[in-house]
Amino acid sequence: MELWYTEKQTENFGITAKVKQTLHTEQTEFQRLDMLETEEFGNMLTLDGMVMTTEKDEFVYHEMVAHVPLFTHPNPKHVLVVGGGDGGVLREIVKHPEVEKATLVDIDGKVIEYSKKYLPTISSAFDHSKVEVKVGDGFMHIAESRDAYDVIMVDSTEPVGPAVKLFEKGFYEGISKALKEDGLFIAQTDNPWFKADLIAQVFKDVKEIFPITKLYTANVPTYPSGLWTFTIGSKKYDPLDVPEERFHDIETKYYTKEIHKASFVLPKFVGDIIK
Amino acid sequence: MELWYTEKQTENFGITAKVKQTLHTEQTEFQRLDMLETEEFGNMLTLDGMVMTTEKDEFVYHEMVAHVPLFTHPNPKHVLVVGGGDGGVLREIVKHPEVEKATLVDIDGKVIEYSKKYLPTISSAFDHSKVEVKVGDGFMHIAESRDAYDVIMVDSTEPVGPAVKLFEKGFYEGISKALKEDGLFIAQTDNPWFKADLIAQVFKDVKEIFPITKLYTANVPTYPSGLWTFTIGSKKYDPLDVPEERFHDIETKYYTKEIHKASFVLPKFVGDIIK
Repeated sequence: MELWYTEKQTENFGITAKVKQTLHTEQTEFQRLDMLETEEFGNMLTLDGMVMTTEKDEFVYHEMVAHVPLFTHPNPKHVLVVGGGDGGVLREIVKHPEVEKATLVDIDGKVIEYSKKYLPTISSAFDHSKVEVKVGDGFMHIAESRDAYDVIMVDSTEPVGPAVKLFEKGFYEGISKALKEDGLFIAQTDNPWFKADLIAQVFKDVKEIFPITKLYTANVPTYPSGLWTFTIGSKKYDPLDVPEERFHDIETKYYTKEIHKASFVLPKFVGDIIK
Repeated sequence: MELWYTEKQTENFGITAKVKQTLHTEQTEFQRLDMLETEEFGNMLTLDGMVMTTEKDEFVYHEMVAHVPLFTHPNPKHVLVVGGGDGGVLREIVKHPEVEKATLVDIDGKVIEYSKKYLPTISSAFDHSKVEVKVGDGFMHIAESRDAYDVIMVDSTEPVGPAVKLFEKGFYEGISKALKEDGLFIAQTDNPWFKADLIAQVFKDVKEIFPITKLYTANVPTYPSGLWTFTIGSKKYDPLDVPEERFHDIETKYYTKEIHKASFVLPKFVGDIIK
């Protein structure tokens, strides 16, 4: 018997991966959670039928979410992750010695629980002394925070289910208030091939709130189109004007200080989306 | 009835695309050729079950094959395309006013015939006055050419079927002889996620022949992993040392002079493959 997981990334296109076994499946309070052991990508977490992360390619997304903003900010002491229940972004954050505290707020404790169980290399920082984990509504946590964070990272699912409100302008206004006066945030903002309208809308909304707004990309094989975008909104620091001495060596598999800069160079059709 | 095309890009991973209809299917002298009308990507050409090109995303590959070497060379008059029977690379080449003649040698006339019929926006340059088309063995054409070309582009299939010998060191030695004394070539060299060994071998072989050898990447959604590599071997001109005034405006959807440079900045794990 052959078992194949197929994700329709659009109505008419998808990826398919051979599955050794289903490790866990559950309808949580918020979403359908599946943990699959795949042949090609190792263990794979899907939520509502969409790949969130896999052991083989997770490093791209997690490194690019964490290191671009953390090297952009000259002294990121307090960091907030909204979502990110697999722990991969946390694992990257604690590599930065400047960070004193990393708070993660994920709405679904089951994601954390099963990531700890089945994605041990990804969820390895949950017990780190700098890490604080809250199971709760990231939107509400942002709304209740004032002048609290140097860097906020929105590591959400696509804008379906519990994540819909994490793509609305009111959320970015809340982020601005939750950030310190020189803070910055990044959010994953889907792909330019199938979701150009979403990227354009988010970029426009963020640009109306933050003086420095930029888009960068990275290649994630298990995400739709393989080309992923991240939107950065910053009150003061420009990700393309980082002093050379700010960068320091860090153990990575995708990110380098050269990739940091090159990731903001957009293919023409991607640049046109945010014009 | 729903018809889906599925390409196993590895034994355990693939893409799947909804098909409106099969426009043509044929076992040619060299390979299995299918032309599909897909919902997501428009018309799609597959050879031996692998996506060669689609109307929606073809511009990335064709622009990056053609413009990076053509802007690297200061005066590319004579250009050879090995493979490339869909005509997309030719269409990009004739945008360069310096080019006096572009010769295309594809082993399979059926690819040209059905690309003309079903991929009109891609195959639009076959009748251009600068274009010469030969149906024949590119390997033999290279072996019989001496000091003939400024730029050679190897737009082949994966190393299966008729393209196997286009990934061997003897072929690159032939290319070196077929190039003028300041010539350069590029070849598509598959993806770093599933074919790292191939990239490493090709890069090593090319580096033993050409003083300047570099790797660059581009995002192609319908190719395995979405991240494609190209290897450039050059006798004299460095793709990262192009004088600013060499670049001129050209109508593109992916390539820009900034992308030209950024495409050589490799993710750490990709750079490690060719170390």
